Amino acid sequence: MIDLRSDTCSQPTKAMRDAIANAPVGDDVYGDDPTVKALEREVAELLGKEDAVYMVTGTMTNQVAIRAHTEPGDAVLFDQNAHVYILEGGAPAAFSGVLPRLLPGVRGVFTPEDVSNALGVSHRFFPNTIPAPVKLLCLENTHNIGGGKVWPIERLQAVCELGRQRGLALHLDGARLWHATAATGIPEREYARHFDSVSVCFSKGLGAPVGSALAGSRDFIARARRFKQQIGGGFRQAGIIAAGALHALRNHRERLQEDHEHARMLANGIAGLPGISLDVSAIETNIVRFGVSSLPAGTFVERLYDKGLYVLPSGADGVRAIPYLNITRQQVQEAIDIISVVAQENARNAGVSGPGGKVSSGAGY
Amino acid sequence: MIDLRSDTCSQPTKAMRDAIANAPVGDDVYGDDPTVKALEREVAELLGKEDAVYMVTGTMTNQVAIRAHTEPGDAVLFDQNAHVYILEGGAPAAFSGVLPRLLPGVRGVFTPEDVSNALGVSHRFFPNTIPAPVKLLCLENTHNIGGGKVWPIERLQAVCELGRQRGLALHLDGARLWHATAATGIPEREYARHFDSVSVCFSKGLGAPVGSALAGSRDFIARARRFKQQIGGGFRQAGIIAAGALHALRNHRERLQEDHEHARMLANGIAGLPGISLDVSAIETNIVRFGVSSLPAGTFVERLYDKGLYVLPSGADGVRAIPYLNITRQQVQEAIDIISVVAQENARNAGVSGPGGKVSSGAGY
Amino acid sequence: MIDLRSDTCSQPTKAMRDAIANAPVGDDVYGDDPTVKALEREVAELLGKEDAVYMVTGTMTNQVAIRAHTEPGDAVLFDQNAHVYILEGGAPAAFSGVLPRLLPGVRGVFTPEDVSNALGVSHRFFPNTIPAPVKLLCLENTHNIGGGKVWPIERLQAVCELGRQRGLALHLDGARLWHATAATGIPEREYARHFDSVSVCFSKGLGAPVGSALAGSRDFIARARRFKQQIGGGFRQAGIIAAGALHALRNHRERLQEDHEHARMLANGIAGLPGISLDVSAIETNIVRFGVSSLPAGTFVERLYDKGLYVLPSGADGVRAIPYLNITRQQVQEAIDIISVVAQENARNAGVSGPGGKVSSGAGY
Amino acid sequence: MIDLRSDTCSQPTKAMRDAIANAPVGDDVYGDDPTVKALEREVAELLGKEDAVYMVTGTMTNQVAIRAHTEPGDAVLFDQNAHVYILEGGAPAAFSGVLPRLLPGVRGVFTPEDVSNALGVSHRFFPNTIPAPVKLLCLENTHNIGGGKVWPIERLQAVCELGRQRGLALHLDGARLWHATAATGIPEREYARHFDSVSVCFSKGLGAPVGSALAGSRDFIARARRFKQQIGGGFRQAGIIAAGALHALRNHRERLQEDHEHARMLANGIAGLPGISLDVSAIETNIVRFGVSSLPAGTFVERLYDKGLYVLPSGADGVRAIPYLNITRQQVQEAIDIISVVAQENARNAGVSGPGGKVSSGAGY
Repeated sequence: MIDLRSDTCSQPTKAMRDAIANAPVGDDVYGDDPTVKALEREVAELLGKEDAVYMVTGTMTNQVAIRAHTEPGDAVLFDQNAHVYILEGGAPAAFSGVLPRLLPGVRGVFTPEDVSNALGVSHRFFPNTIPAPVKLLCLENTHNIGGGKVWPIERLQAVCELGRQRGLALHLDGARLWHATAATGIPEREYARHFDSVSVCFSKGLGAPVGSALAGSRDFIARARRFKQQIGGGFRQAGIIAAGALHALRNHRERLQEDHEHARMLANGIAGLPGISLDVSAIETNIVRFGVSSLPAGTFVERLYDKGLYVLPSGADGVRAIPYLNITRQQVQEAIDIISVVAQENARNAGVSGPGGKVSSGAGY
Repeated sequence: MIDLRSDTCSQPTKAMRDAIANAPVGDDVYGDDPTVKALEREVAELLGKEDAVYMVTGTMTNQVAIRAHTEPGDAVLFDQNAHVYILEGGAPAAFSGVLPRLLPGVRGVFTPEDVSNALGVSHRFFPNTIPAPVKLLCLENTHNIGGGKVWPIERLQAVCELGRQRGLALHLDGARLWHATAATGIPEREYARHFDSVSVCFSKGLGAPVGSALAGSRDFIARARRFKQQIGGGFRQAGIIAAGALHALRNHRERLQEDHEHARMLANGIAGLPGISLDVSAIETNIVRFGVSSLPAGTFVERLYDKGLYVLPSGADGVRAIPYLNITRQQVQEAIDIISVVAQENARNAGVSGPGGKVSSGAGY
Repeated sequence: MIDLRSDTCSQPTKAMRDAIANAPVGDDVYGDDPTVKALEREVAELLGKEDAVYMVTGTMTNQVAIRAHTEPGDAVLFDQNAHVYILEGGAPAAFSGVLPRLLPGVRGVFTPEDVSNALGVSHRFFPNTIPAPVKLLCLENTHNIGGGKVWPIERLQAVCELGRQRGLALHLDGARLWHATAATGIPEREYARHFDSVSVCFSKGLGAPVGSALAGSRDFIARARRFKQQIGGGFRQAGIIAAGALHALRNHRERLQEDHEHARMLANGIAGLPGISLDVSAIETNIVRFGVSSLPAGTFVERLYDKGLYVLPSGADGVRAIPYLNITRQQVQEAIDIISVVAQENARNAGVSGPGGKVSSGAGY
Repeated sequence: MIDLRSDTCSQPTKAMRDAIANAPVGDDVYGDDPTVKALEREVAELLGKEDAVYMVTGTMTNQVAIRAHTEPGDAVLFDQNAHVYILEGGAPAAFSGVLPRLLPGVRGVFTPEDVSNALGVSHRFFPNTIPAPVKLLCLENTHNIGGGKVWPIERLQAVCELGRQRGLALHLDGARLWHATAATGIPEREYARHFDSVSVCFSKGLGAPVGSALAGSRDFIARARRFKQQIGGGFRQAGIIAAGALHALRNHRERLQEDHEHARMLANGIAGLPGISLDVSAIETNIVRFGVSSLPAGTFVERLYDKGLYVLPSGADGVRAIPYLNITRQQVQEAIDIISVVAQENARNAGVSGPGGKVSSGAGY
C-alpha cells in the first residue's frame, strides 16, 4: 500500500530510532529533560525568538497560543480555511472562548484590505460593548487546505504591518513553515520575525513521530507553559519523543526539496487525465490537491485504495495526496499509474474524455 | 432631535405605563409572578410552542437557546451577518463554547445548498474526531443587518427541512418576527413551527421597555430556565417590565404596518439623492439601510445629527434608520428633508451629481 | 398567607410604583437612560467608587465582577457557603472558568489565617504551572447562608489587607450590605473602601422589583459593561425598573431597622420551643435561621404552609424566615403563633420536650 | 543526587528503551498505531472495560473524563485534596466549566454520608434552577496528597453505590491504582468495576516515560477521543511512547512491592527523629509524607538538597519523598542518613529533642 494520506503518516528512520533509544531524559514538568531543553533552544534560535516550548501536537501549540493571546469573548481573525479554525475540533471556541471572524483568503492568502474590512469601522454613536473586540490575527504558512500554498513574503509583511498598526497580536501557524523555507530559500526566522508567536511541527514533513513547538517572547512562553500544563500537555520523560523531533530538525529540513519534487512529479503525472482537474503551477510544496469530476471523491479514493493507493477525499469532489520522507520516486510513479487507471476507468463509465473542470475550493480538508 | 437609530429607542406609551404601574407581580425566580406567567403563556400560544420563558434581552434569549441546544466544541451554522454572530459580544464562543460556521446568505437569506456545503461530506478515511460536529442551525427573520429582509416562507421551509434531515437542531432568532408577519400576513406560528426554539423581542418594534422571550418544548424551556438563572437572568418582580411586554404584544403588533409605511416613505424620499444608494424594493419592513458615497458614513451621520436627525453609521459607507412607535409621519418627512440637505451639500462639495453606487453589503451593523 | 421565604418576595409600594410609572427612560445600551444614570451615580457616590453599573440581578453583578477580575483557569477564594459559590448556578466555573478554593468561614466570616492557608506556600522546587493561580478573594456582607451575619469591620479590614499584600483582587458581595450598615451604623462606603469592586442589590431588603449594581474604578466598570452586554444583560428602557431601585435606595435604607426588629421578635418568639434550636444572639439583621429536630425541615415547612406561613427549608434540618418591607408586626406575631402550634404538635408526636439540639450549619440555603 | 521528588522522575530501563526503539508505529490520529492499539486493548482488558484510549498525561485523561461526563455549569464532587482539583491547573473549571463541590475526606477517603451531605436535600419550595446540579463523583485511589492512601474496598463500594443511587456518574482517578493492587492483592478490575470511567498512569510508579489511559464503555471512549483531539492530544506515531507504557504495564506492576518496601524502610528510618512527625502505619504504598517542625519545609528540603537528597516540600511544614524503579535499597539508606543528619542539626539549632508534633494535613502537595 502506498500511503499518501498525509505527511503525518511518516515512519521514523533507523537513525531517528537510534536517537530516540539513546536520548538523555528527565521529568519535563520539573524542567529537567535535557533533550526537550535542547530542542526548545534550537527552535527558538532558528525562529529568532527568546524562548520556545515543546508540546505534543500542532493543535496544542496553536490553541495554547490563541489562549495565551486572548480572553473569552475576544474575536480572532482567521482565514476561512485555516487549520486552526476548520481542523482543530472547535478548540478556539471550546478552549479559548474566542469568536472566529473570517477572512476571504485565496488558498489561504488574504490581503491587508481583507483584514481592514474585517476589523470594520467603529463610531462613537454605536456602543463598543456590542461587537466582540478583535485581538488576534492568525496566518498559516504554508497553508494546508490551500494546497501547500506559500505566503509571498511581501504580502505576509504587509498583512502583519496592518495588524500591528491596528493593535492586533499576531500568530503564525507554521506547522509546515519548513516547506515555505525549502521552496523559497527565505529562512524560517525571516517569516517568523513578523509575529508574536510561531508554531512549528516536527511530525509532518519533518518525519518525527510526535510533537510541535511554540516560540515567542520569554513572558509569552512562560504563559504558554501554564496553559500547556492545564490542558494536559505536561508530559514527563518527553525527551524520548523530543529526540526524534530534534533529529528531524537537524537532518530533515534539507530533504523536503525531494518531497516537493515528488509532489510536482505526481501532479505532472496526473494533470490532464480525464475527469481530473489540477493546476500544476499551484503545486508549490509537498501537497497535491486535485478535483475529480466523474464520480464522488469518496468513491474515487476507495477505488484507488482497492488498487493500493491510500489518499484522502477532500470535500465532495477533491482529493489530497502528500509525499513524504518514506515515499520513493518509484512509489510516486506507481501512484500516478494507479490514478491513471482509475481515472480512465471512470471516464469510460461516465463518458468523459477531457480533463475535469474547476474543483470546488475549500470544500474539504 | 428625531431619533431613528433603532426601534430599541422607543418610549413607552401612556397606556403601557399604566399597565406597568398596575401590574400584579411576584418573585419570578420562585415562579410567582402572575404577569410574567401570563406573558409566557401568550407567547407560547402565539408561537404554537408548549412553553416560553421571559428574559431581559434578545441576546439572552438567543444565547441561552444556543447554550441549551449544544455543548462546547460543537459547531453552529449562522448566516455570515447574523445578529447572534456579529452583534452579541462573542457570546456564542464565550458562553456556549461553540464554533460558528458561516453561511453566505444574501441579506441574511441562504439556501439549502449553502447549508449542505457547510456541512460538508464526511468519509471513513478521515477521522471524525477532527472537525467540530455541527449541531445547530440558526436563522434570523426578519434579518437586521440584511435590512429587515423577510425570509420567503418556502425558502425557510426548505432550509429547515434539510437541517432536520441532517439531524440539526433549529433555532429562529425572531427578534423582529412580528415584522415578517406584519409584512406578509403569515402568522408567527407558521414561521415558528419549523423550529425547535424561537426567540421574540418586545423592546424593538413592539415598543416595550425591556425584554424578550424564548419558546420551545416544555423540556427545552425547563433547560433554558436553568441557563437563564446561571447567566444572571433570574429577575424578581419582573412583572413590572413583563406588563409592558404584554401590553405591547396585545396592542402593538397591528400597528407595525405604520412603521413599514414610514420606512418606505423614508426610502422613497431619499432614493435618487446625489451620493445616496438605496434600492427601494429592498425595504420590506421597518429598517432602511442606504449607502453614502460622497463621504464616510461616520461623517455623514454626524452632519445629520447636527441638523437634528440621529441615525447610525453601518460600516464605512452605510447608514441605518429605523422608524418606530413614537415616530410620526411628520418626523419622517423632516428626516427626509435633513438627509436631502446634507446629501446635496456633500454632493456639491464632492462634485457628485447622480445617485450613489452600490453600498458594500454586510460591512456593518 | 404570610410569606417569609425571602426578602426578594417584597411587593413594590405605591410610592415606588408611582416613581416607576413616571420615570424618564431611554435606551440604556446606548447610555441614554437618565434614570439608570442617576441610579449609577448615586450608587457610586454612596460606595465611594468612581463608577457603577446597573444590572438585572445580583447574580449578574457578582458573576460579571468575577469575570472581569480573572481569566479561565484562575482560582478564586470563596467562603465555603458563599452565595456566589453555592447559589449562582455554577456560574463561577461556567461563565468565568475559575476554580473555587474554599475558606472555612464561620457563618461566612473567615480569618486572615484562613486566607493565608488557602494561598499555601510555593517553592522553587515545585512547578508553578501546576496549581491554578489565586487571583481574587470574595467576601459576602451580610452573609446569607450565615444567617445575615455582619462582618466585624476590623476582621474585614484585616482580611482585605492580607489579600492586598498577597496581590489578590478583592470583591465584596454586598447584596445585603445595607443591612450591615443598618445594624452597625458603619456607612456602606466604609465597608466598600477595602474592595476593588462591590455589588449591591435593590430587590432584596430594599424592596425594589428588579436589579443590582456593581461599583468600582472607571476602567473596571467599563470592562464590566462589556461582559454585562455579552452575558445578555444589556437592557433597553431600564429606567422603568431603575426608578424602583432608585426610590428604594433613597427611601428604604433607614427602615431596614424595622425588619431587623421583626427578625429579633420572631427569633425571641420561637427560641425555646420544643424541637426548635435557635441562638437569638446570632440574629444580627433580617435573616432568621433555626434548626428543627423533631421532623425533617421539608415536612416542617409544609406543615407551616398548611397553616398560612410560607418559609423555606434550608438543608435537612434547617428553616429560613426573612421579614421585609411588606411584613407587619402583626404578621410576625402570627408567624410565631403558627410555628409554636406546629412545633408543639411535632413535639407531642415525637415525645420531645426541651429545645432542639445544634442545627447542622451550612447544610442548605 | 538521590532524587525522591516523585515517581514521575523515573528513567526508562534498558529493556524499555529497546521496546521503544523497535516499536511498530503508525499515525494514531488515523487509528493506525499498532502499539497504541495493543496498549489500549490490554488496559481495557485489565480494567474490565469495553475500551480504552491512550493519552499523553494523567491530567489529560482525568480532565477529558470530567468533560465527557458533564456540561458547563454542572457540579462535580471531589475530595478536598483530590489531584484533579488541586493539581491540574484549574482545568475542571477552565476546560469543563464545572463547579467543584468538596468532600471532607481523611487522607482522601470520604464516606457515603459525606456524599449525601454534599448532595443536600432539595425541596419543591426552593427553585431547582439555582444550585448547580451535581452530575459526577470522583475518587482517587491511591490518594496522592493523602500519602498514597489505599481506599478500603468496602468503603469504595459503599460510596459508589450511593453515588449510583443518586444518579451520579462515577470516575476513578487511578493514576496510582497499580499501587492499591500491589498493596492489597485486590485486582485493578475489582476496583474499576464500580466506576463508569477509570484513568491509569504509566509514567509514575510504573516507570514509563510518557502517558496515561482512560477506560470505559465503548460510547464513552468514543466521546473521550473527540475531546482528546480537541484539547490537542491527538498525537501521531505515539507507539514510540506507548511501547514504553506497554512494557511497563507488562513488566513493572509486580515490582511495585519493592517500592512499597523502600517507602516503609524510609519511614521507619526517620520516624522518631527530632522535629520529624511521621505515622509509620500510614505508609501503605510508595509515598512517604512527613512533617517537619523545627524549620520551614522549604528550608528543610533545601538543606537535604545541599547534602544530595532531592525531595519536595508539601505546604509549610510537610515533606514528600517517593521511591521508584531506579531507586536502590542503598539509596534509601543514604536518604535516611541525610535526613537524620539534617534533622539532628536542626534540632540542635532549635533546641528540640523529641519527635515532631502533628503535621498539618492537606496543606500542600
